[in-house]
Amino acid sequence: MIQQEMVIAGSTVQYVFDAGLSKLSSLCDKKTTVIITDENVFAAHGSKMKGWRTIVLKPGEAYKQQSAIDSILGQLMEMEADRSTTLVGIGGGVVTDMTGYAGAVYMRGVRTGFVPTTLLAMVDASIGGKNGVDVGVYKNLVGTIRQPAFLLFDTALLQTLPELEWQNGFAEIIKHAAIKDATMFNDLQQHDLHYFQQHKAALKQLVMKNALLKTSVVKKDPFEKGDRKLLNFGHTLGHAIENDQQLSHGYAVAVGMVYAAHLSQQLLQFKQPLELIQTIEQYGLPTHAAFDMQRALYNMRHDKKRVRDVMHFVLLQKLGKAVVHPIAIKQLEKLLLSH
Amino acid sequence: MIQQEMVIAGSTVQYVFDAGLSKLSSLCDKKTTVIITDENVFAAHGSKMKGWRTIVLKPGEAYKQQSAIDSILGQLMEMEADRSTTLVGIGGGVVTDMTGYAGAVYMRGVRTGFVPTTLLAMVDASIGGKNGVDVGVYKNLVGTIRQPAFLLFDTALLQTLPELEWQNGFAEIIKHAAIKDATMFNDLQQHDLHYFQQHKAALKQLVMKNALLKTSVVKKDPFEKGDRKLLNFGHTLGHAIENDQQLSHGYAVAVGMVYAAHLSQQLLQFKQPLELIQTIEQYGLPTHAAFDMQRALYNMRHDKKRVRDVMHFVLLQKLGKAVVHPIAIKQLEKLLLSH
Repeated sequence: MIQQEMVIAGSTVQYVFDAGLSKLSSLCDKKTTVIITDENVFAAHGSKMKGWRTIVLKPGEAYKQQSAIDSILGQLMEMEADRSTTLVGIGGGVVTDMTGYAGAVYMRGVRTGFVPTTLLAMVDASIGGKNGVDVGVYKNLVGTIRQPAFLLFDTALLQTLPELEWQNGFAEIIKHAAIKDATMFNDLQQHDLHYFQQHKAALKQLVMKNALLKTSVVKKDPFEKGDRKLLNFGHTLGHAIENDQQLSHGYAVAVGMVYAAHLSQQLLQFKQPLELIQTIEQYGLPTHAAFDMQRALYNMRHDKKRVRDVMHFVLLQKLGKAVVHPIAIKQLEKLLLSH
Repeated sequence: MIQQEMVIAGSTVQYVFDAGLSKLSSLCDKKTTVIITDENVFAAHGSKMKGWRTIVLKPGEAYKQQSAIDSILGQLMEMEADRSTTLVGIGGGVVTDMTGYAGAVYMRGVRTGFVPTTLLAMVDASIGGKNGVDVGVYKNLVGTIRQPAFLLFDTALLQTLPELEWQNGFAEIIKHAAIKDATMFNDLQQHDLHYFQQHKAALKQLVMKNALLKTSVVKKDPFEKGDRKLLNFGHTLGHAIENDQQLSHGYAVAVGMVYAAHLSQQLLQFKQPLELIQTIEQYGLPTHAAFDMQRALYNMRHDKKRVRDVMHFVLLQKLGKAVVHPIAIKQLEKLLLSH
């Protein structure tokens, strides 16, 4: 077990790596804690939640809506949860996002903690304090930025994950390497998905490295005024096609990274799009998808990152070095429709 | 016009006293601003909002619910409001609470400003960053604490207020004096409601003094760990009877202050309950109400200020000096039921 305290935007977040879920009781008191999870996680790991009060959600992004938050808040009231309550989200990004949001607004804020159970949530979604729900097809349109009190990482939970969930996680890992860490990118090029599924120590290391990489970006820029925007690499187009096309988040981001790599080539003379594409393929992720670009552009205009008539796109100068590049909506339409 | 910048919990809040509503355009840009108001305020002052995009809510505490927030967020999306949008709440506490909450969660937070139009909102509700909605009879069960970017005070807006609204405001003014300012209490004793309705300069002074008194309490304790709790004087019982009895907030707080004064007498040898009661009467407020104390106690147990089996009640040592006093629920029942 490796413990580390990080201060993010004035809040102390306790990271507990390489620990079992059973360590939860050292982080919060059973009597004053409510676990929030979903049916899938509860089916796989419910036995480890015995004796804890638990709210079980329907699984999946489709239920990441205000109505689910209303239901959580109603159940907390029935349990007479008060300001001394800790909410612990055990699940993927949907569960940790909703737990974080419910915890931010219930009685104007109670203590929260997360136990991510997917690779995507471990390396990305559970970290950084962003939370919220979707409104229709618009992802995370409502929410807050608020840090959890603790994060518990138990990579043993990943063993029950379907292949798709492994691929989803690696989309964000490849993204991290592409924008910030050429050495990690090189390491990813040397291996493949199967390798990390088989080598537990290498997986633990990779999870910790990525969790800390994201944390260090968030620490420097908790409210996304600058560097944190780089984490949106592949996400602007990714979000715009994800719900429409019923793509998983990782698949959508993988496709988004490929388009962003082409834009980087055209606008910033980025020279390694093929290396990025090859690595994406090594981890079982798609490099293209059938979608209506006009509709994707419409969705992007309604994305919360739009500021008037300019999109702030994350592009690569080289592998390991990203920048935010403003592109006028009109120019973006021309570039993307020409593909 | 008197301008003052206050830093509360790291946020800069601009206070503009003694200004007309027309000054709004110097605080935010018409093109990127959305005004949120209610039908009553719009009927009285809508002509001053010409040329601004406006969301008009149904008036009253009964509509301070999540469904109204959902409606605001939907309208903001239709207007293509983005992260550069400012939301300005023009209205009483219900409007400023909902504007603050919508602004805290829309796209994870946009700039907000308030123009309080009731005396209660000017001296209390619009100040301090608490926002939220009720859940059933439980007031402000969901919300955040987040400061607005500016507050604009135009006491001319008060001239159209019904008598009840004046009384409501004075309940909080009397509360401020009782917990923090013996000199102001003395001043209130020397005058009455009619005097402040007739003397504009005295009213402006009183509004500014109370807005700054509340601000200074909030500045020292933005997240209600200590001193800010004193502002709950009269509110614990007040909230518990307000919705059940269809009492206005000020009436409920006035009755709550009288009960708290009696508890103060019994537990802290407070010697001035009659002075407090007399002053409450001078401002047209009730000192008792017909209600079911058992039901009020049940509501209190479900109030968000309850921490386990102890209530933290605000009591008076003397006029101008309040303290937080823990009372076991059982003892509280005994004391209150004996009245």
